[in-house]
Parts: sequence; C-alpha cells; structure tokens
Amino acid sequence: MSNSGGDCCGCSSLCQLLFEYDTPRIVHIKSRKVGLINRLFQMGILAYVIGWVFVWQKGYQEFDTVISSVTTKVKGIAVTDNSAGVRIWDVADYIIPPQEETSFFVMTNMIVTPDQEQGHCAEMPGPSTTCTSDRNCTKGLVNVKSNGVQTGRCVAFNGTVQTCEVLAWCPVENDQTLPKPALLKDAENFTVLVKNNIRYPRFNFTKRNILPHINSTYLQQCVFHRLTDPECPIFRLGDIVQEAGENFQDMAIEGGVMGIQIKWECDLDQLWSKCVPRYTFRRLDNKDPDNNVAPGYNFRFSKYYKSANGTEIRTLIKAFGIRFDVMVFGKAGKFNIIPTMINIGSGLALFGVATVLCDIIVLYLLKKRFYYREKKYKYVEDYEIAPNATLECDTP
Amino acid sequence: MSNSGGDCCGCSSLCQLLFEYDTPRIVHIKSRKVGLINRLFQMGILAYVIGWVFVWQKGYQEFDTVISSVTTKVKGIAVTDNSAGVRIWDVADYIIPPQEETSFFVMTNMIVTPDQEQGHCAEMPGPSTTCTSDRNCTKGLVNVKSNGVQTGRCVAFNGTVQTCEVLAWCPVENDQTLPKPALLKDAENFTVLVKNNIRYPRFNFTKRNILPHINSTYLQQCVFHRLTDPECPIFRLGDIVQEAGENFQDMAIEGGVMGIQIKWECDLDQLWSKCVPRYTFRRLDNKDPDNNVAPGYNFRFSKYYKSANGTEIRTLIKAFGIRFDVMVFGKAGKFNIIPTMINIGSGLALFGVATVLCDIIVLYLLKKRFYYREKKYKYVEDYEIAPNATLECDTP
Amino acid sequence: MSNSGGDCCGCSSLCQLLFEYDTPRIVHIKSRKVGLINRLFQMGILAYVIGWVFVWQKGYQEFDTVISSVTTKVKGIAVTDNSAGVRIWDVADYIIPPQEETSFFVMTNMIVTPDQEQGHCAEMPGPSTTCTSDRNCTKGLVNVKSNGVQTGRCVAFNGTVQTCEVLAWCPVENDQTLPKPALLKDAENFTVLVKNNIRYPRFNFTKRNILPHINSTYLQQCVFHRLTDPECPIFRLGDIVQEAGENFQDMAIEGGVMGIQIKWECDLDQLWSKCVPRYTFRRLDNKDPDNNVAPGYNFRFSKYYKSANGTEIRTLIKAFGIRFDVMVFGKAGKFNIIPTMINIGSGLALFGVATVLCDIIVLYLLKKRFYYREKKYKYVEDYEIAPNATLECDTP
Repeated sequence: MSNSGGDCCGCSSLCQLLFEYDTPRIVHIKSRKVGLINRLFQMGILAYVIGWVFVWQKGYQEFDTVISSVTTKVKGIAVTDNSAGVRIWDVADYIIPPQEETSFFVMTNMIVTPDQEQGHCAEMPGPSTTCTSDRNCTKGLVNVKSNGVQTGRCVAFNGTVQTCEVLAWCPVENDQTLPKPALLKDAENFTVLVKNNIRYPRFNFTKRNILPHINSTYLQQCVFHRLTDPECPIFRLGDIVQEAGENFQDMAIEGGVMGIQIKWECDLDQLWSKCVPRYTFRRLDNKDPDNNVAPGYNFRFSKYYKSANGTEIRTLIKAFGIRFDVMVFGKAGKFNIIPTMINIGSGLALFGVATVLCDIIVLYLLKKRFYYREKKYKYVEDYEIAPNATLECDTP
Repeated sequence: MSNSGGDCCGCSSLCQLLFEYDTPRIVHIKSRKVGLINRLFQMGILAYVIGWVFVWQKGYQEFDTVISSVTTKVKGIAVTDNSAGVRIWDVADYIIPPQEETSFFVMTNMIVTPDQEQGHCAEMPGPSTTCTSDRNCTKGLVNVKSNGVQTGRCVAFNGTVQTCEVLAWCPVENDQTLPKPALLKDAENFTVLVKNNIRYPRFNFTKRNILPHINSTYLQQCVFHRLTDPECPIFRLGDIVQEAGENFQDMAIEGGVMGIQIKWECDLDQLWSKCVPRYTFRRLDNKDPDNNVAPGYNFRFSKYYKSANGTEIRTLIKAFGIRFDVMVFGKAGKFNIIPTMINIGSGLALFGVATVLCDIIVLYLLKKRFYYREKKYKYVEDYEIAPNATLECDTP
Repeated sequence: MSNSGGDCCGCSSLCQLLFEYDTPRIVHIKSRKVGLINRLFQMGILAYVIGWVFVWQKGYQEFDTVISSVTTKVKGIAVTDNSAGVRIWDVADYIIPPQEETSFFVMTNMIVTPDQEQGHCAEMPGPSTTCTSDRNCTKGLVNVKSNGVQTGRCVAFNGTVQTCEVLAWCPVENDQTLPKPALLKDAENFTVLVKNNIRYPRFNFTKRNILPHINSTYLQQCVFHRLTDPECPIFRLGDIVQEAGENFQDMAIEGGVMGIQIKWECDLDQLWSKCVPRYTFRRLDNKDPDNNVAPGYNFRFSKYYKSANGTEIRTLIKAFGIRFDVMVFGKAGKFNIIPTMINIGSGLALFGVATVLCDIIVLYLLKKRFYYREKKYKYVEDYEIAPNATLECDTP
C-alpha cells in the first residue's frame, strides 16, 4: 500500500495532485448565544432560498416568453335616426380599417361632411380667418389649422360672417359640435370574438384561448363574464369598458383607447389544462379630466365617388371611436436541471454570508471577543518587516 | 525595518489595517479516495463553467435584442372566371388594407354581395328569423347574428320561405356556401419581397436582409428556396405555406394566419458577414381539425358607390384570406470585460461548493470520518455555559 | 449553567445543533507586501460593487419594462399643380390607411392611373412583352411583372411599339417615370401630434407624454424643437427627417421608413416629474446608395367607382411615402429590498475571490512561499495509504 502510493506519487506531480484534497480548518464553537445567532442567520437564508428562490420565483425552472397571434371579429348592428333618415351601420361600415394585426377600431361617433368637391369656398370662421375685406386675406397662406389654401379673397361664410376664401374640398368641414349622445351608441352591445394562439418556442408548447372543452354551441351564444363565463372569448364592448371602470356612453362621444390584456402564466410542470388565459381590461389613453389636453381618439377618412360628369367628390368622415388593442403577456416555466443547480449552488454560497455576519458579531461585539479571536486566528508576522519579533499567537 | 514597521503601525490603526492579510487555514489531506472525489467534483464544475457558461452561453459577451423594421411588397395576378365573367385581380385589389406595419393580408376567397342599398328586405332564413305571420317578428329586434333591425313584418324570402323583414343593407349577404376551390387560388404563385432592416442599438450595429452581395439582377428573378436560394428575400406564398406543412389550396378556402419568422442570431465577435437572417415559416392559427371551432380568418369590408340618383350603394365583400405576420427575433453578443469577470468570479465561487460536498463525504460518510474531523475542527466551548469543562479537542 | 446546558444537550442532538457555530480558522499575516496586494484587490472589488453594481446598474432596484399605447394625428395641407389642374390634398387623402396602431404613412409622391377598367389592352413594353406578331405572345401567360394575363395577340402599344395584349385593368400603369420633385413636397411642413401613454405595471405607474404643465394654449401652437421646445409632442415631419440626418425632399421621392423613438428611462425613487420622455429620430430603412437594391417604400391601392352604365372603374395609385413607426422604449427602477440583499450578498461573496487571488500570489509567487504554506496548511496523510509515515507539518 505504502509502496504503490510512493510509486505513483513519485512518478509525476500531476498524479500526486489528483490525490490531494484541501478543506478549511474550522473552529467549532459550542455556545448558546453565538450558536443561536448563527442558526437564525442560516434559517433566514434557508427561508429565502427555499421560499423566495425556489417556491415563489420557481428557481428550478427555465423560462420562455410568449409568442402570440391575434385575430378579432366584431359583430353587431347600430341604427342611427337623424335628419338624413334611419340608417343601419354594420361591421363593414364601422370597423376602420377592416383588419389590423392586433387591434381593431370601432367607430362610435362621427361628423360627416358629404359631397365635398375640389373648389373655392369660405373657410371656417376663426380668429385668423374672419375678414372684412380682401386685405385681411393672404393669397397662398396655409397653416396647420387650415382646410385649404387661401385665395386672397374675402367671401361670405353665412349671412353674418365673412371669412377668407380657400381652395379646398368644399364645403369645408364644420367640427365644432360633436353629436351627444354618440351616434353609434348601440356599439355598447357589439361583441368581439378574440382568437389568440400562443406559443412558447423553447418548450414547443402551443395553445389557444378557445379551450378544448369549448364547443361550437357554447361559442355561438356565450358572452364573457368574469364570474359565470370566464373562459368565453367573446366580449361585449360595453362590458370591456365597464370592467375598466369607465362609462361606455361617455367614452363613445370623443373616443379613446382600450386595452384587452390576455395573460398566459403557465407552469408547464403542471397539467396542460391548467395553462389558461386570464383577461383584464384597462383604458390606455388618458382620462384625467383635470389635465385633459387633446382628449379622445379620432381620425379623418373619406369615401370617394365620381359624379355623373366625372368630377371626383368625397364624403369626409371625422370618425370618433374606441381602438381596442389586444395585448398578450405570458411567461412559461418548466423544470430544468441547469437553473436548479445554479440556484442550489448560489444558495449554498449564501451560507458563507451567514458566517461572515456571525463572525462580525462574535469577533467584534461579544464580551468574549478576544477569546474567540485567539481561537480563530493564528498571527504571523513577516520576517522581512520584523525578523526578530515573531508574535505567534496561535497557542491552542 | 522593525522600527519603520513599529512607527507606522503605531501611528494609526488604519495604516496597520492596510498591511494585514487574512487567509483561511487549510487541512491538506493526501488521500486517494478523497482526492479523487474532490477532483471529480472540481472537474464537473470546471466543465460546467467552461463548457456551459463560456462556450455554450457565451458568458464572455454582453447581449442586446434586435430592433427591426419591416416592409413588404406582394406581386402577382389572379384570374377568376365565374358567372360574372372573367376578371383580373391585382395587388391593389387583394391586399387589404394596402399597407400595414409588420403584416400583410392576401385575399384568397370571398363572398361578394353587390349593389347593397339601405332599405327593407327579408332576413336570411334561420331558426329565429323564419316566420309564418307578422306575429313571429318583433319590431326593433336586433341580435348578434342579425343583418339589420326587424320591422315586425313577415315577408317572402323566396318562393317557399318567409322570414322577418329587416331594415338593413339590402339584399342581405348569403354566406352559407363558400366557393370551393378558393376563387383566388392563383394566390399560391404570388411572391412577396420582405425588406427587413435590423439594429442592435447597444453595439450600433445595423444590417438588412438584402445582403450586400445580392444585386438587382439576382433580386429581380430569385425566389427563396431553402437549399438553392436561402438568402433571397422574395418568397412564393405557396412555398411559405408548404414549408409550414400546410396545403395552400385548403388554407385558401377559409383563410388563416401564417408567420414569417426571421431570426438574426449574431455573434459580433465574428465576421460581419456571418450575421445573416434565417427564415422559418409557421402556421400561427389553429389547424387541429378535431377542435376547430371558428376556423380560418375572414372579415368584411365594403366599396361604396353613389348611384345616379345620389343614393349610396355598396359592394359588401366577406374576404377570406391569409394574413402573413412577419416576426423578427434576434440576439447579438459581443465580448465585454464585465460579464466575463462576473462569470469567472462566480465560477471560482462555485469551487467552494465542491469543497462543501466533499466535506460532507469526508466528515460524515467515510469510515475514517472521526480522524478527519479531529484534523479539521478545533472544538471550543463557551465558558459561560460550561466554565470548568473545556473540551479542547484540537490536539495535533 | 453547566447543568442546564448538560440537560438540554443531553436530551436531543437536534437541540445541541442549535447551539453550535462553525467558523473557519484564519492565518492573520502582518506583511506590507501581501497586505497591500490584498487591500488593492479588495478595493477593486469594492469599487466594482459600489460603482458598477449599485451606482451605475442601480443594483438596489427592481425593474420593469414599459407598456405603451400610441395614437397619432397628422395635420397639414398640400397643393399639387399639374396638367390635371390645381388640387388640394388633406389628411383624409394622404394618410393610408386612415389609422394604424403604432405607425402612420404619409403619401409624398404618387403615380396615378385614372379610369382603369377590366378589359383588353397592350402590356407595358419590356423584354418579354414587345412583339412583332401573335406568335411572340402566349395565351394565358402570367409572370411576376405582368399587369394581366396575355391573350395571345400582339397589338399596338403606341405608334412605334407593339406589345402582347393582356386581360387586365386597362390602361395598364406606366410607372417608369417618377415625379421629381415629389408631388406632395409640402408634406415637409405637416405636423404630427403623437400621444403616448405608458405604464409600468409592476409599480402601478402611469404617465403620458403630454406632461401635466403643458396646457391647451401651448399645445395648439408649439412645435418640437430639441433646444427650445423639447417637451412639445407635436413634430414637424421635415424636422424629424432632418434630425435623422436625411433630406426630406430626397426621401419624399421614393419614400422610406422613419422611426420616432420615445425613451422613458425612469428612476421611480426620484421625483415623479423627473420621469420624462426623450425623443430621437432614425431612418429605419436602408439609405446606403452603393448597395441600394429595391430602395424606398411604396405600395399600390385603388379607389373604386361605378360608371353610369354600372361597370366598375378604378383609379390606381402607386403611393410613395414615408412610414413613421413610433417605437417606445423604457425601463423603470424602484428600490426593493430583495435585489439589494442579493447584490450585497454576491458582493460579499466576491471578496472570497480576492482571497483566492492573493493566496495564489502568496503561496506560489513570493520568495517566502514555503514559510506561508507551512502556516496555512496542516498536512494530513491517509493512514490507509501510508500508515506508518505520518507527515504532520502543522507545528505551530
């Protein structure tokens, strides 16, 4: 035995290196006070590692974020009854543009300016456009609020007011008075089917928000309700706005932006069926009435026609409405040995911190600190500094 | 020498602190069994640190995620030949809306309802709309499937069926039968040029998917092919769908959502030319035929006209088609001293774990554990607990 | 005292475990050279932990990324004066589609082909379409550049050139010559109001880019300027392009993609009012003139009309313009005890690395390495290997 050891370790120092093991020397102190403090620190660290890192943060899992695709389909009919007669609005009329990637816009209110034609007409009255003679108008003037280019002439806007004439789509739009209540107030009862397919590429996991147990019959009549139908992917627009704490009819007048948030928090170590979407709704634009510069959401679009004589005419629509942005969030975790080992490793390393903290107490705060220091430390002085004064204090 | 040391260390304890160094005392054990176990643990940790952290995870790099901008351009002509005659469909006809930020929709099938006008007509037959007399109809009734508002009258839908009259865009759409094969089945041969510019802001690195060696001549005739033309950014729609394992003509009937995934995995420590995009294709919506509630992708839009007498008429189109979402993923890494140092540091710290694990074996599992414990530990008992029973075991 | 200790520790070893404390034995070396090296390493680590981890990286905070919603509103009038007469273009004419989620497209140039009708006409001249007789044309031929399907006949394109006849929207578009300067060159003076609401869900923090002190009066006349009006959310398109280092009029001809980047870097430990957006602008598509295959940004769309006799006619527009993508970035940090503790912990652990590095110097590089080794190590040989040769070197 001795020989073989001698042989091996004689042949190469590399080989000798293989059979060595270094481990720190330890002072093992039996003391109620210090022991309790130490164990308390260690308990704290253990609780943190197990409770926070492993149970709460799922430190034994690797994670992936969601990749999502969304399609939406709105259904509903609105009726307007005004001076122009009764009119029906269906989905092809009030969804603009007809399809978008992750959002949809529902027109709820509008200012229509029909039969506009390129030509000369009086500008809308305003501080910079009312005039008394041609001298008040500047040929070629355009500014941000103009409807067209001034021709330099001052013409009658109506019986009492004169304004500068502009080259524009005539007659110019009058958007001073907004219909109240909103014209398409029936939009509150529209429904939207949100189809959402998600994927966690790292785990090759796909799922969609129409869950497997939902059949056609249920899907044709259900409407999402937080308590009774939490898995139905069909939402009544009025419910969405109400859940976000807003009033649909108020919002319909000037428009706004709503978020439909779909959250997929999946623990893929659990059953497939436990990974389900959770829907929440928020208003995304500002609603603070005190600080509400430029409120709501609106834009202008036109329908172009050709008159019998071939000139282009258009119907300009200033559309107010609610844009619904579908936002999909998600994180999935699944057991993986590498993050598990890393977290166990760094958890063990943290116990070193407990020792450091205890050492501070033991060596600097306790009454018997000098006694403990003597046990822990072996004092060595460098000969070059003090060759004849060896102050070896380690005398166990 | 002794004096200067004495002088300095006498003047201030701060100064003395500068010239101190604490290092743990170590038991150096020469033992085959223990040494081998220890080296095995250390090898494992070294392999993990070098192999996983540095080589695989590129622990010496800092990372950035991609910022991308996408434009697309579809080309192709489709011909339809039905009762209404032969008709040509070009890009301005079948891309709806004409431009989107990161996706494009190609109409492949449709149900056209021409010359709709606001008026009264018979609702589509259905369980809740067929009637025998006015008493079956409710004035003002609207539901999610309605095409309009019921007027309360029961009128003839055709020779045999009577349905409730509605105020609606008349005649109402009949979407019971979907054209098979898809009307624009030629869409399989359409091509799309995807232009993608990416940027890694942290490294001020930009690149685009039209690589520098691609010239106009090649770009005008190439079509992406996984093997022969993997760098051509022009994709045949049929190829995209086929690579995703789907059948284009089947998909064209009811529509769907396809993902064009562009992956930029760049190691910026390597050559600039090695950072190239990789294209993959996936179907994003559900295709599972067993659980296929609400399949496909479709939406409705209208073209508005004005008749000679000024009334508004429209052509309603229920458009079925494929939405292509361009999804850009990417991560770039570049050498940086800080993550390198952090990973070396935590790698070194991990070696402490090897010692902990070995200690458990040496001190609790080996036969000679009591011998090793005696070498490692120095036992100290607190006087306050047992003043007269000092159990000093450290007798080397 | 001794009794109670004896009682407790006699009853259970678990109890005894509570009152124990292990701490490593240390060699405390007083040496100028080694001490200085050690303190230098420690200073470096401390500087890294405090400077980099805590001050620079804000290691005492937890972080959240921004959730954002964007709406935009463009204003401005353009005038074109060509053979067709003077014409006004307003927002409903040049924004296509009228609304998008996070971007908007402003048409700056176009090729208009009015009064197209389905029919037969001569294809645009080109290498594969010019012909001298019907034999040069193939009935049914379609390729990627075709405007329609060849009928097999060779007809006169104009007085001098003959091309193959196609079934197409006739007359076919001639996009050979692009208007220079751009038709809607006035777009340089258009302005866009960008409304951006952000949210950090983890901190329940919301804010918008119209800051509270901005009132309606200011908002109605301000234009963003890096120095004088850095908080005004209204941008002149020409300024955006100029700040990105581009020439608007050049870009307007062929189109392009611009990024409006809004950065919300918020330290929520500071005042609410210090969390403000920062705007930057970049060109997102390629502008490199040397490698500019397929430059610019354009797409085709149509306006559909019905002629008096009921046939469908359309105006095809090839629209060139600038797409503005609004990109919102943001990260917010707020003090949290958990990341603070983790970073303090791993900072302390790093000090172990200083000791490891010092040990390497002390035990392997210094002249007195053997002396220090003797002090640090206690050599133990396993009896099984060398039972009669105990080489205990630890003789303090």
